[in-house]
Amino acid sequence: MSNKFRLDEVDHQILDMLIDNTRVPFTDIAKKLLISAGTVHVRVKKMEDAGIIMGSSLTLDYEKLGYSFIAYVGVFLNNTSQTKFVLERINEIPFVTVAHVTTGKFNIFCKIRAKDTKHAKDVIFMIDDIDGVYRTETMISLEESINDKKRLMHTIFKDI
Amino acid sequence: MSNKFRLDEVDHQILDMLIDNTRVPFTDIAKKLLISAGTVHVRVKKMEDAGIIMGSSLTLDYEKLGYSFIAYVGVFLNNTSQTKFVLERINEIPFVTVAHVTTGKFNIFCKIRAKDTKHAKDVIFMIDDIDGVYRTETMISLEESINDKKRLMHTIFKDI
Amino acid sequence: MSNKFRLDEVDHQILDMLIDNTRVPFTDIAKKLLISAGTVHVRVKKMEDAGIIMGSSLTLDYEKLGYSFIAYVGVFLNNTSQTKFVLERINEIPFVTVAHVTTGKFNIFCKIRAKDTKHAKDVIFMIDDIDGVYRTETMISLEESINDKKRLMHTIFKDI
Amino acid sequence: MSNKFRLDEVDHQILDMLIDNTRVPFTDIAKKLLISAGTVHVRVKKMEDAGIIMGSSLTLDYEKLGYSFIAYVGVFLNNTSQTKFVLERINEIPFVTVAHVTTGKFNIFCKIRAKDTKHAKDVIFMIDDIDGVYRTETMISLEESINDKKRLMHTIFKDI
Amino acid sequence: MSNKFRLDEVDHQILDMLIDNTRVPFTDIAKKLLISAGTVHVRVKKMEDAGIIMGSSLTLDYEKLGYSFIAYVGVFLNNTSQTKFVLERINEIPFVTVAHVTTGKFNIFCKIRAKDTKHAKDVIFMIDDIDGVYRTETMISLEESINDKKRLMHTIFKDI
Amino acid sequence: MSNKFRLDEVDHQILDMLIDNTRVPFTDIAKKLLISAGTVHVRVKKMEDAGIIMGSSLTLDYEKLGYSFIAYVGVFLNNTSQTKFVLERINEIPFVTVAHVTTGKFNIFCKIRAKDTKHAKDVIFMIDDIDGVYRTETMISLEESINDKKRLMHTIFKDI
Amino acid sequence: MSNKFRLDEVDHQILDMLIDNTRVPFTDIAKKLLISAGTVHVRVKKMEDAGIIMGSSLTLDYEKLGYSFIAYVGVFLNNTSQTKFVLERINEIPFVTVAHVTTGKFNIFCKIRAKDTKHAKDVIFMIDDIDGVYRTETMISLEESINDKKRLMHTIFKDI
Amino acid sequence: MSNKFRLDEVDHQILDMLIDNTRVPFTDIAKKLLISAGTVHVRVKKMEDAGIIMGSSLTLDYEKLGYSFIAYVGVFLNNTSQTKFVLERINEIPFVTVAHVTTGKFNIFCKIRAKDTKHAKDVIFMIDDIDGVYRTETMISLEESINDKKRLMHTIFKDI
Repeated sequence: MSNKFRLDEVDHQILDMLIDNTRVPFTDIAKKLLISAGTVHVRVKKMEDAGIIMGSSLTLDYEKLGYSFIAYVGVFLNNTSQTKFVLERINEIPFVTVAHVTTGKFNIFCKIRAKDTKHAKDVIFMIDDIDGVYRTETMISLEESINDKKRLMHTIFKDI
Repeated sequence: MSNKFRLDEVDHQILDMLIDNTRVPFTDIAKKLLISAGTVHVRVKKMEDAGIIMGSSLTLDYEKLGYSFIAYVGVFLNNTSQTKFVLERINEIPFVTVAHVTTGKFNIFCKIRAKDTKHAKDVIFMIDDIDGVYRTETMISLEESINDKKRLMHTIFKDI
Repeated sequence: MSNKFRLDEVDHQILDMLIDNTRVPFTDIAKKLLISAGTVHVRVKKMEDAGIIMGSSLTLDYEKLGYSFIAYVGVFLNNTSQTKFVLERINEIPFVTVAHVTTGKFNIFCKIRAKDTKHAKDVIFMIDDIDGVYRTETMISLEESINDKKRLMHTIFKDI
Repeated sequence: MSNKFRLDEVDHQILDMLIDNTRVPFTDIAKKLLISAGTVHVRVKKMEDAGIIMGSSLTLDYEKLGYSFIAYVGVFLNNTSQTKFVLERINEIPFVTVAHVTTGKFNIFCKIRAKDTKHAKDVIFMIDDIDGVYRTETMISLEESINDKKRLMHTIFKDI
Repeated sequence: MSNKFRLDEVDHQILDMLIDNTRVPFTDIAKKLLISAGTVHVRVKKMEDAGIIMGSSLTLDYEKLGYSFIAYVGVFLNNTSQTKFVLERINEIPFVTVAHVTTGKFNIFCKIRAKDTKHAKDVIFMIDDIDGVYRTETMISLEESINDKKRLMHTIFKDI
Repeated sequence: MSNKFRLDEVDHQILDMLIDNTRVPFTDIAKKLLISAGTVHVRVKKMEDAGIIMGSSLTLDYEKLGYSFIAYVGVFLNNTSQTKFVLERINEIPFVTVAHVTTGKFNIFCKIRAKDTKHAKDVIFMIDDIDGVYRTETMISLEESINDKKRLMHTIFKDI
Repeated sequence: MSNKFRLDEVDHQILDMLIDNTRVPFTDIAKKLLISAGTVHVRVKKMEDAGIIMGSSLTLDYEKLGYSFIAYVGVFLNNTSQTKFVLERINEIPFVTVAHVTTGKFNIFCKIRAKDTKHAKDVIFMIDDIDGVYRTETMISLEESINDKKRLMHTIFKDI
Repeated sequence: MSNKFRLDEVDHQILDMLIDNTRVPFTDIAKKLLISAGTVHVRVKKMEDAGIIMGSSLTLDYEKLGYSFIAYVGVFLNNTSQTKFVLERINEIPFVTVAHVTTGKFNIFCKIRAKDTKHAKDVIFMIDDIDGVYRTETMISLEESINDKKRLMHTIFKDI
C-alpha cells in the first residue's frame, strides 16, 4: 500500500533486537549495528511517530499471579447494530484481554483470563448481562501451549 | 497457594509503572515511589528470578506492517496422544501466535496473523498438512477491537 | 414439459457458438453452420422472445478491479413471511451478486463480493441491519477455483 | 495496488454499456460517448489484453432448459493436501458451475445445477465418489431470487 | 402390560394374511386356516373393537400421481406450551403426512410430500407462518428407499 | 408428464372411497357412484396394472401391540458408494419402517419402531454394525401426533 | 410390570425415613411407625433381597476434598461394536463417576470429577486414549446447583 | 488450600469403610482399625461438623421402582441473569436429580429420571414452561453403564 511506512534494513535490525528485550540500552543496539546511539534513538522515535511501534508490554506469568484460567467466549448479539455499544461495555471488563468482531456463528469473540471456574462464571455472566447480548458460548483452555508473537515479528522483518 | 510468590505493595507499584512503559528508567520509578534505584533494580531482579516477569515485548501495529489478516483456527486431531507432536509442528509456523489445548469440539485452538486471504490459506494449509491433524475450521476476524492486557494487569495488582 | 420451448439441432449449434463468445458476428455463425445470416438472426430472435436467451454479460476479472474478497452469507429471518421484503432490501446492496431462498438452517443464502475484510464487514452489517434479519453467518472464500457455466451450457445442448 | 491497471472515465463508460448488452455495436458506443469507433475498439482491446475483460457469456433461462434444480454442496476432504486434485476432478463434472476453497466447516463449497431431485442425487454422488472426498453436505435452493452481477459492475465503475 | 389385549395364534395368522392384502375375502382366510368364515369375521371384529386394527389404507405410487418430492421439516417453537396449538394448525396442511413431538434440537418433526421444489417451498412457508413457530429446518429426501411396515408387522406376530 | 397415467373423475371417486376403507365392497362403490360393479372392478384393475394402486395395508395400533417407541436415526456412511449395500442391510432389519437417501448432514435417514429404550438400543446397534456405517445419530419421538396420508390422498384427488 | 416387586405402605414409610438418614436405628423407625424393630429388619432385608435397596453411600463435600472440577465428556466411538470394551476401560478411571450409552451425537456420555483444569485435561486424555475412542467433546460445569435424588425418592414413594 | 480440613490416616480408613456401607456399626469399624468405638464416633462427628460428610443416601434400583427412563436436558435461557430464578423453579421438579450451570451451548444442564417416554415428555415440558427458559434440547440415555462414586472416593482417600 502507498501509505505503508518504508522500513529499511537498519530499522529491521533495531526492531529485531528490541523484540527480544524492550529494555536493551540503545548504546548496546548501536554497538551491535555499528551505528551511533543517536541514530538508534532517531529511528525508534520515527517508528513510534509512524505508529509502527505502539508501545511495549511486560510478559508476566499469569499462573504465578493466580490467574490460570483462560477461556474463549463467543458472543451472539440481538442485532449487529449493537456491536459498537457492546464492545464498549466489554472493554470495561478488565478480564477480557482480546475481543474480535468475527465471521461465522459468533458476532464477537473474546479471550478472558480468570482466577478459577467460579471467577470465570462471574466474568461470563458480566458479558451475558450486557444489553444487546443474546447468548454466549464458552470454550475452556486446558493449556496455553503457545503465546509468542516474537517468532512472527522476526519473520516479518526477515521477510520485508 | 503456598508456592505463590508474595508480592508486596512496592512490587505492585513497580509493576504498575513498567506495564505502561517497559522502557521507563529505574531512576524514574525510584523517584516516583520514593525509594532508591537500587531497590527498584533488586525488586525487578527478584520478580524475574521468581518467573513472575518473563520478559517484555513490543506492541507493533501489524496492519502498518502488512499483516492485517487475523483468523482463529480450530484443529481436530486423529488422536489426542498426538497433541504434543502437533503443537511442536505448529510452533514452527511463525504466523501462529497463540495455541491452546481446549475442551469443546476442537483439540487445539490457534490464532494466526497473515498478510491477506491468500496468505491465510497458505498458513491454514500448513496446519492442515501436519501429521495427525484430521481437519481444521477457521473463523475470520473482521476487526480486532480489543487487545489489551494492561487493564488486566492493573486489576491484578490492585486486587492482590 | 409441454410448455418447454423446442430447440432443434441448429438452435443448439448457434447457442454453442454464442456461449463461447457472445460478440461473434452472425455472418461467422452462418458460414460455420452453412445457413444464411438471416436464419441465424431469426433463430436468435426467437430464442430471445421465448425467454431462453435472457441477455449477455461480460466476464470481468474482479481481482484486477480490486474486488477480490468473496464470502457466502447465510441469513436467518425472524419469520419467513418477511422473505420477500428482506430480498428486496438485499437487492439494493450491489455487493450481493447471488441470493437464494434455501432449505436447511438458513432462510436466505447470499454470495457477496467486497474489496477487503473491512469492506466485507460493512456489507455483512448492511444485511444484518435489514428489518426482519435475525442473524447472519459468514463463510469466507479463500480461492474461487471454478466459476464457469459454459461447460454446463455445452452439456445441456449436447444432451437435449 | 501498483500492478492495478488504471481505467479512465472513458473505459468505465464503455464497460458500463457493454455490461448491459455485450452485443451492442461499437459504433453505437462511439456515438453515445462522442468518440470514434476506432477508439472504442482500441480501449476494449486494451482491457482484454490487460485481462480485465476476460470474455462474455450468455444469460440463459435454465428453468426453460429443464435445469431448475440448484443446490450448494459443502465438501469435506480427508486432507487439504488433496484440494488441488479434488478440484480437478470436480472440474470434470459440468453440473458444478462454481467451486470455492473456503474457511469454516467445509474445505470446498460448490454450486450445482441439475434437472431434478434424482439428477441432483447423481451429481452429488459423483462428487462424493471422488478420491479424497470424505463427506458432503447439501443445501437445496428453493428459489434463486437474485443472480445479477450487473449492479456490482455498475457500482465498481461509479466507485473507481 | 396388564391392559394389553391378548392375541392368540389364530389372530396372528389372520393378521398375517390381511397385512399382505387387506381385501382378501374372509372365506379365503377361513379356508387357509381351516376355520369357519364366521370365526374370521368374529376375530377381526374383536380386534377392531379392541383398537388393534384401526383401519386400512391404500398404498399409492405418489410419484405416478405427481407427488415425488419428500422432505423432513424440523420445527422450532417459541415455547413448548404452544405444541398442541401448532400441531392442530399443522394438521390442517394435508401435505404433512407425519408429525412427531421430539427430543433433540427440534420441538416438532414433520414429513411432507409435495409436487416439486416450488410446491415444497409453499408447504414449508405454511408451516413457518403458523403462530408460535419460530424457525424450521428442512432436509430433502433424494430417494425413498424403504417404506414398508409389513416386515415389522410380520415380525411382531411371529414374536408375540 | 407425458408418461403420467390419466385418471378421470370416476377413478378419483373410486380411490376416494377406497382410501377410507380398503375393504368396502365394489357393489357399495358402484351403488354410490351410479355405475356398475363391473366398471369399478375394471377401473381398480387398470389402476393396479398402471402401478398407481400398489397395494393396501392395515393400520394397526402399535402401542397396543407393545411397540410404542419411535425414533429417527440419521446414518453417516464412510462413502456414498456404499449407499446401496447399506440400504440392503438396513432392509433386513424389520424394525426399520422407512429409510431415505437424504441431503444435509446424513447420508441415510431411517424411522424405527421398537418395544422400549433397551430394544431401541439393540436396533440402533444393528444399524451401527453394518459395514460402511460410520456413525449414527438418533432423535427420539416423544409422541406421534400425526400419521395420516388420507388427507393428502383426498387433496390429490380433488386437486388433479 | 408383572415382575415388579410390590411395596406396601409400611415399606414406603421405612424407605422414606432411611432416605433422609441411612444410619437411623431400626428401633427409631419402629417407634415412629408403631411396628416392631423386627418387622423393620424383615422389611429392609426383603427389599435388599429383591434388589430394590442396592446399598447406601456417603454424601461427601467434594470441594472440601479438593475435587471441585466437574465436567461432562461426550465420547464418539469409531464403531458402536466397541461400546462394551470402551465402557470397561472407562470403568477403570475412578474420576469418571457416571457413564451412559446415549442417543444423539455422542455414543457414550460421562461425568467426571477432577481437582482442577490440569487434572481434568489428564482425565480427558485418559478417555481419549482408549482404543476405539475417536473423539471427545467436553462441557465444563461452572456450578453444581442441584444434586439431590431424595426429592425424587420421596415422590416415588408418595406416588406408588 | 489453607482452609482445607486436614484428614489423617485414621479418618481415611473410617471413610473408606463407611463408603462401602453407611450402616456398618461403629464397633465394627473400631475393631477393624484397632481403635475405640468412641474414637470412631468422635472422628465421624468431626468430619460431619467440618461439612466433609454431608449425609448418606440409599442406592435404590430405579428400574425396579418403575423409573427406568433417564435423559439429559440442556436448557437455554433468554438471559443469564435469570439463572438463579430458573434453578429455583427446576428445583421444584423432583424428577430433576442433577443440575449444573455450564459453559458451552447450554446455560443449565439437567439430568432427569422418568417412568417412560410419555412421562419424560411431561417433565421436559415442565422445564420448558419455566419463565426465562427459551429452549431445551434432550439427549436420551439408552443404558446407564456406570454410576458409582465409590471408586472416586477410595481414590481420593488413597491419594490424599
